[in-house]
Parts: sequence; C-alpha cells; structure tokens
Amino acid sequence: MPLTWLAEGVFTSHQATLLLFSLALLLGTARLLGELARQFKMPSVLGEILAGIVLGPTLLGRLFPGPMEAMFPLSGNVFIGQQTLTLVSVTLLLLVAGLEVDLAVLLRQGKAMVLVSVMGMVLPFVLGFGGAWLAPEYLGLGEPALALPFALFMGIAMSITALPVIVKILLDLNLSKSDLGALILSAAMVNDLVGWIGFAMVLAMLPTVGAGLDATATPHGNLMLTIGLTLAFLGVMLTLGRWLAHRLLPVIQARLEWPGAVMVFIMVVAIGSAAFTEWLGVHSIFGAFIAGVALGDSRHLRQSTREHIHQFITNIFAPIFFASIGLRLNFAEAFDPVLVVLVLVVAVAGKLAGGYWGARWGGLEKRQSMAVGAGMVARGAMEIILGQLAYDAGLITEPLFVAIVIMALATSLISGPAIARLVHRHQRRKLSDLTSDRQYIPRLVAHGPRAAHNELAQAAERLTGLNAQTIAGAVWAREQIMRTGIGDMLAVPHARLDDLSKPCIVIGGSERGIDFDASDGQPARLICLLLSPTSDANAQIEMLDLIARTFQYEDVRRDAFASDTFIQLLAAIKLAESRQNEH
Amino acid sequence: MPLTWLAEGVFTSHQATLLLFSLALLLGTARLLGELARQFKMPSVLGEILAGIVLGPTLLGRLFPGPMEAMFPLSGNVFIGQQTLTLVSVTLLLLVAGLEVDLAVLLRQGKAMVLVSVMGMVLPFVLGFGGAWLAPEYLGLGEPALALPFALFMGIAMSITALPVIVKILLDLNLSKSDLGALILSAAMVNDLVGWIGFAMVLAMLPTVGAGLDATATPHGNLMLTIGLTLAFLGVMLTLGRWLAHRLLPVIQARLEWPGAVMVFIMVVAIGSAAFTEWLGVHSIFGAFIAGVALGDSRHLRQSTREHIHQFITNIFAPIFFASIGLRLNFAEAFDPVLVVLVLVVAVAGKLAGGYWGARWGGLEKRQSMAVGAGMVARGAMEIILGQLAYDAGLITEPLFVAIVIMALATSLISGPAIARLVHRHQRRKLSDLTSDRQYIPRLVAHGPRAAHNELAQAAERLTGLNAQTIAGAVWAREQIMRTGIGDMLAVPHARLDDLSKPCIVIGGSERGIDFDASDGQPARLICLLLSPTSDANAQIEMLDLIARTFQYEDVRRDAFASDTFIQLLAAIKLAESRQNEH
Repeated sequence: MPLTWLAEGVFTSHQATLLLFSLALLLGTARLLGELARQFKMPSVLGEILAGIVLGPTLLGRLFPGPMEAMFPLSGNVFIGQQTLTLVSVTLLLLVAGLEVDLAVLLRQGKAMVLVSVMGMVLPFVLGFGGAWLAPEYLGLGEPALALPFALFMGIAMSITALPVIVKILLDLNLSKSDLGALILSAAMVNDLVGWIGFAMVLAMLPTVGAGLDATATPHGNLMLTIGLTLAFLGVMLTLGRWLAHRLLPVIQARLEWPGAVMVFIMVVAIGSAAFTEWLGVHSIFGAFIAGVALGDSRHLRQSTREHIHQFITNIFAPIFFASIGLRLNFAEAFDPVLVVLVLVVAVAGKLAGGYWGARWGGLEKRQSMAVGAGMVARGAMEIILGQLAYDAGLITEPLFVAIVIMALATSLISGPAIARLVHRHQRRKLSDLTSDRQYIPRLVAHGPRAAHNELAQAAERLTGLNAQTIAGAVWAREQIMRTGIGDMLAVPHARLDDLSKPCIVIGGSERGIDFDASDGQPARLICLLLSPTSDANAQIEMLDLIARTFQYEDVRRDAFASDTFIQLLAAIKLAESRQNEH
Repeated sequence: MPLTWLAEGVFTSHQATLLLFSLALLLGTARLLGELARQFKMPSVLGEILAGIVLGPTLLGRLFPGPMEAMFPLSGNVFIGQQTLTLVSVTLLLLVAGLEVDLAVLLRQGKAMVLVSVMGMVLPFVLGFGGAWLAPEYLGLGEPALALPFALFMGIAMSITALPVIVKILLDLNLSKSDLGALILSAAMVNDLVGWIGFAMVLAMLPTVGAGLDATATPHGNLMLTIGLTLAFLGVMLTLGRWLAHRLLPVIQARLEWPGAVMVFIMVVAIGSAAFTEWLGVHSIFGAFIAGVALGDSRHLRQSTREHIHQFITNIFAPIFFASIGLRLNFAEAFDPVLVVLVLVVAVAGKLAGGYWGARWGGLEKRQSMAVGAGMVARGAMEIILGQLAYDAGLITEPLFVAIVIMALATSLISGPAIARLVHRHQRRKLSDLTSDRQYIPRLVAHGPRAAHNELAQAAERLTGLNAQTIAGAVWAREQIMRTGIGDMLAVPHARLDDLSKPCIVIGGSERGIDFDASDGQPARLICLLLSPTSDANAQIEMLDLIARTFQYEDVRRDAFASDTFIQLLAAIKLAESRQNEH
C-alpha cells in the first residue's frame, strides 16, 4: 500500500540526490564567488549572481549541457523543488528588508528628507516612464497590450533605491550615524516603501500573474478590488498590525519559549502575509516586506532575535535566490550593449539629479547634496527582485531584464566610492587589513619590556627597512615618559619616526606575560608595537584607538592570547570587527 | 516567449498562495500546540506532531475534506513543494543532531559507559529482532520478501535513544554536568551513532529506496558495494573530514566574512554529504548526521555560530518536519491498541534492563543504575525519523509506524520524571515560576529602605496571610544586622518566618533608587523581598542565589529597571533563564 501511494509523486532517490546536490553546489559556488567579490571590495551579491551565470546556460550549461540540465532542469520534480526553495528564499529576503525599515526614524525627519525622497523618486520616474511610453518596443516590452503597466514599471524601476546596499556603504564609511547618513537612509526607505506599493499596483493591472489558469478563486481581473484590498492590507498592517505586534511581542517573550516562539511568530506573520498578497494578485514578496516593516518597528523585538533571523536568511536563503537568477537565463545571448548603456545612464542621471536638487532645496550645500545624490544612485537586490518579477510576469523581455541586473550591480559599485570622494571620507581602517603573518610573533622570548621592544623592532626592520636599533631606541624613549601597559593584559609601545612612509604594527604574544606597568597591575600578554610617520599627526591616536577597540572584548582577548598562528590571531580580530559592524 | 516558458511547470499564483499559506498554517499550528505541550511540562515535539494530526486526514481532513486536500494534496506542484521543504527540514535536523555528538567526550569515558551503551543496545536489539523475526505478519511487515531487513529494523528501532530529549531532561534536572549525566549522555551518543550506521545498512538492503525506477546511475542493487562505500564514507568523514574541518574552520573564520562563511560552509558540507549518501542508497539524513558529528567536534566552531544554526533549524525546520508526519497519515484508522502496547512494553523493558545491568556491571549502585536505565528509555525525534523512513520505504505498515510514533512520545514523557524520582532531584526552581503579577510593584513610593520594606510587606500579607507588620519587623531586624544591597542596583531584603509554608518573593521597582548601602555605593532600583520558612533550611540561600544569577546580566537588569508592567519584568527574567538553559 505505501509503495503505490509513494509512486504517485514523491521524490525518487535519484531526484532527491539531484535536488540536494544542486542545492549544495549552488550555495557553495555563490559563497565562493561572493567572497571573491568582497576581496575586490565589491558587494557579495555580485558574486552570488555570477554563480548562477557560471552554473547556468551562459557558461557551464553550454560546456556540459547534459549534467547541467539534469541538475537544473526546466520541468519535473527537481525543477519544482528548486522553485519552491527560490520562492521561500525571496519571500524571506523581503521580510529581512522590511525589518530594516524604521518607521519611527522616518517620522522624525524634516523637510530635507521629504524633498530628497520626493525629488529622488519623481525625476527618475518621469525619465523611466517617459522613455518606456515613447519607445516601448525598443526597450523591450514583452506584450504590446501591456504598454501602460510596462511604462509604469520602468518608472518605478528607475525610482527605487537599495536599502541594504546603502546601509552597508554608510557603515563602511562610518557615516551611518551622521546627519548626512540619516538623510540618505530615510529617503531611501521612503523610496522603497512607495516603490513597492506602486509595483504591487502594476502587478495587479496584469491579467493573470504567473500564467495561472486556475486563478478563479482570487480577485484577479477586478483591478479596483485588488488595489483597494492591497491598500487596505497596507493600512491595516502599518497601523493596527504594528500596534498589535508591539503589544504581542513582550507577551510572547514572557510567556512562551525564547527565542523560538518569537522567531516562529515573525515567520508565520510574514509567510501568512505573503500568501495573502499572492492571493490578491500582487505577489507574495510585497506581503512579506510589509510584514517586516510592521514587525521590525517594535523596540520589543530583541537584537539577538533579529540576528538569528538576519544571519540565517541573508547567508543561506539570499544566495539561493540570487544564484538562481542566472540559472535559467542566458546572459551572453541576451546582452544588448545599447540597452544596457541606456538603462544605466537614465538610472544614474535621474537619481543623481533628483537627489541633488532635493537636498539643495532642503538647505544642504553643494558638495553634501552631490553626496546625497550619489547615495540615492545605489540600486541592488531590490531592483533585481523587481526585474525578476516583471520578467516572470511576461512584462519585460530577457535583454531588458539582463540590462536591469547589470544596472543594479553597476550602481551599487559606484555609489560608495563617489560618496567617499565627495565627503572626503576614507574607509575606516581595520586591524585585520593592517596585519599579516610577517607582523606577528606568537611567542616572544623576552621577559622584560626592553627586550620585547628589541624583538618586535627586529620584525619592524624587515617590514620598513629602518634600522632596528633606531626603532627600539625611539620606543624605549617613549616608554620612559609613559609606560604603555593599558590594562587587560595589553601593552601598546609606540613611537613616531621621521623616515616612515606609513604606519606599521607588529604584534607579539607572551605566555607568561611581561610587566608593562599597567594600572591594573597585570602583565601584558599581547604587545602591539605601533610605529607611525611623524608627518601623519592623526595616525598614532587613530591606531591606538583601533587596538583598544578591537581588544575590548574579553573573549577576543582570550582567543588572541591563546593563538599559536597568525590565522588564529586574525580569527580573533575578525570576531571583534564583526561585532563593530553590527547594526 | 517568457509566458510560454513559464507555463511549462512553474507555480501558478494559486499554487504559490496554497504553498505559502499551508506553510504558515503548519508552522503556526505546530508552535501553538508545541507551546501548549510545554505548559503541561511535556516535550514540544508532541505538540508539533499533533499539529499534523489535527490538520491532516485524522481530524480536519475528515471534517473539511475539500479545503484540506487542496492545501495538503497527495500529488501536483504544491505536494512536490511541500515534499521539498520536508526533505530539506529533516536533512538539516539531522545535521543539528550530529553537531550535538561530542566524540572527544566519548573517548574520555571509561568502562561503565561502554557497558551501558553495549548492554543498552544489545538487549533491546535482541528483543526487537527476535519478535519481528518470529511474528513478522503480526507486527506489520510491509512486504514479505523483506523479512530480514524488517527484523533488523525492529531491532535497531528498539535500540536507539533520543539524544536531544536526553540533553533537555538532564538540563532540566540540573544533572547535565554530573557524572551520572555524562554517563547517560555518552552511552546515548554511542547508541545513536551505531544505530544510524546499522539503519543505513538496512536501507542499503532494500531493492530500491523511494520506489524510484530511474535509479540506474546509483550503486543500488549491489549490496556489498553500497555497504562498503557507506563504511568508507563514515571512516573518511570521522578521521580525515574531522581533521580537515578543524583545520579549515579557523582559516574560514579569519579570512572570510564572519559568521556567514562558516554557516554556509557547514550547510554545504552537510547537504553535500546528504546528497552523497542518498546517491549511495542509504538516505540523505545519514550523510547530514555524520557531517554534523565531524564538524561539531571542532572547538574552533564558535558558540554563536552554533546558536544561529541551532535556533533557526530547531525552531523553523524541525516543526515543519514533525508536523508533516501527521498530514498524510490517518492516526485514528491506523491505531492498533495491542500493537501499541506491545511495542511500548518491548521498548521500555529492553532499554531499562539493558541500561540497568550495564551500569551495575560498570560498578554503579542500584538506584543510580536504575536512573541510567530510565535515561536510556527516552526515545523521541530520532525514533520517529527512523519510522518515517522505514514507512516511506515500504518496510513497515501504517499501524506499526503509528505505534512507533506513540512509543517515541510516551518514552520521552516518562523518562524525566523517572530519573527525578530515582535520584531525588526536583526541577531547578526558576524565578519566572515563582513570580506573578500580584508579586510585583512597578513603582514603589518609598524613598528609604524601611518604607520599602513596609510597602513590600503589604503585598506579602495579601499573598501569605501573615501580618504585614510582623513581616516588615523581621525584615528590618535582619537589615540592621546586614545591609542587603548586593550591588548593581539590586537589593534583597529577606527574613525567615515560622508560620510560612513555602518561600515567597515580592519584587518592587524604584525609579530614583533607594539606598540599601551596597558596596558599590549605588542605590537599589530593584528590591526583591524574600521570605522563607524557618523549617526549610536551604530555601533562603537557594533563592538568594537564584536572584543573583537571574540579574547577573546587564541587559536583563536594564530591562527589569525599565519595566512598567509585570509582563515586561517577566520578559527580562525569561531572557536570563534562556541564557542559563543554553548548552
């Protein structure tokens, strides 16, 4: 009996093997290329999309059509399984994006924010809508009957921004807490919110989303009803839903198991909302996004709960979605250089001008306003999701979708450097970037401070070319003015040198500890020799602060003291840096 | 073009709606019933399985056959989508189970552990195998040709234990760090490891697992080859794989993004191993489990990374799997009381006797040995997964599967209370169980200690029936001997009273703080009045320790100080308790 029952439609062992193997392959490749992108200071989403292009018909599918088509087929149980994972992934990704929108911050912003967000939307929208309305066939309208939704889509596609990308850029530039950062962030949030609502309307205008013929039980086809219900859903979620979530969260945390119950509550609300908006005909991700906005606003949602959800979804589910984009598209065939340039120019010009003028009218000076414009230019994940949905719905052609993906990636790449140049910010220095295995001595032989100076100076000589005795002498002179034990078993002997071109750090470990006369009386087990050029007035203070901040955590110090190799020390430093990057 | 492409097999909007809605419904119901089970001090997996029974053919499917069959169908895209999520869920669940096995601890154990684990396996195995071999039709053999694998399966099913359940029971009883706890845990780990390896062999003996007809590319059918490859996989993973993981983890943590890269690494290894063992014909979960054992052993895998993986998988994926069991089974029809009792008796008797004699021969005294036996009795998640696989493979009938599920749940329920009774342990007291909203005054009016005593004593009068003046007098007398400010803005005024039947706590908040003469000079913002019976010598010290432990965390204190309602205070207390439960 079970055998016949199973034969109906469950996975065969062969299909289960393919499904699991393709999942591992996709995830692994996406991470590998994502990390590679990060090495070149590019967003990891670039590598993740590239993974799909490599594994899909563009590259490996062309070289090894047999195995690749077996692993990533276009029909059958394996295909449906992969589609399921993609659907769940993109839904959860939008939940996380929604959680990042902070309505409370938005409501506190002033005139400048309103002007930036309005101008940053209106100008790109007009450009996108106008172009698409005047030359739909040229841009790649999928279906002639859909000229109006197509033009609306192009307007919206030009006017949304990429919240996660901007958050990351501002964090990297140490601007996220500044007025300029708050302005850019808030305007981007408003753009996203309005953009997604608009896109939901466009989706509602399409005859049947997803080419379904059994969509009889849904309000499809009645445009006014769908739009009315969507707006009602939006209104209820952002008022009553938000209030209810704020009330329920402490009760759930107090009465039920923590953090499991809260995590499930968030998932159920998000997936339930997604199902509801999908039923309305405006795609599941809209519901998940709005649910995220409503839930994320409550200060009762604890940071650690957010972290569990955020880490798993952005690291596991997001790459599955981004990599799957390239799996069934041929980027080489669908690449249309003129279209790509056109989309890119309109996208950059509209946002740059809109953001700039909005900021100017809001009272900002020229340079700052240009930085705001540059910040608004960044597209990213959201733009790609929008394009994917429009493509799936038959609204746009493959070449236009490819152009949108490339535009999203290119704008994410240029936004950060442009802001940095405009506001004279360089990336925050990181200790992990300033150290290498040539700069680490796991076990110093020295018992006293002077011998330790000498040992570290030897290493510094090999790095800088300066004479070790000169270095040790300068450091010892400084040590006699001020003992450099800073407590917590750390010492930071340092000196400024004339002939140095850039700062230099050498780190040494001591198992029994060396007495650097710290105020807590403890011997130093980690000694960081710090040399900086006399010409660079700030370098020394900056680096001292950097070391103190990195080793402020007890577990980081413990790991650093216990290190035998540079890799282990670096792992401890990275742990500290990952904490400082949390937001 | 995209429209025709999509029509091939992608989800229609209607199917996507059903898939998402059924997922939200399943997850929400599973959590709700799981929490309900916890309220009655039962394992939450009981409620999760019940959710499937409620939503499936046993209950709602019978009352509303139309909607329930549309939501949980037996074929079609929605069905395949749900099967995908179940497959991924059970694979990841076994990864987490594997991560909990600590090979290093196993190797340190002595003779008693070896005897307990061997006896605890051999006796139940003999009983299970013998019974199934002698009366296969009666027990419910699915396919007459499979008599040998069936008997082997029954032997293994009787001899495995439930690691996660045991961990939880020992934690609750505060026994997890004791010698007795370590003995039970290690023996259970060995049982699981051996049991799963044995089960993999049994699966390999089946002609074609999963009723697949296209399994030509796999080593199916060649039993020796499959078993050889399985053992080779096991050997390589637990030696070379383990060593490699230990080497790679620090490099990944140091060089790549943290914690994302490590999380993806673990997932890719686990899902890749799962695909490999599925290809071998021994089911994906075996590979995921062994990958977990190999990876979890490294001390380089940080606690917070484990937490992210653990929380998401046990809270989101595990309930999806457990609830899906009941969705396609009719528990009412397949319930055979004689079979249930038979399976239960054999399962309990075999483990109890085996564990007891093993412990006795290992040198433990009678009562302790009985506690070991009671610990080994607990089955749970693992048993159910085993049953599900055997049922899917056509090895056992529906009534036997139902009996195994019931046995797994029943043994999990009786094991904890039995151990507690045998070693005279009561459950660790929790502050959250000892407080209610009648015991909390968010804003004390008092400015000084004596007035605070009086206010809190008023509340204590209402709770205990004792006179408020008597209480305040006793507390004040104690206060004059020893000031009760314990620092960190906490004060614990206390007294022992003759007429009290059980301990009583009243907590008061003070926004400006009250000076209780703490050594750190800070005024107390949270004052916990603690009354205990003179007859119970330990109660006072135990409760003082409980309060100090609960409020040791800075964020918990901050939340507690900021509370306006009892729910908020309770949420803070629960946060502290959830940390103490972590392992």
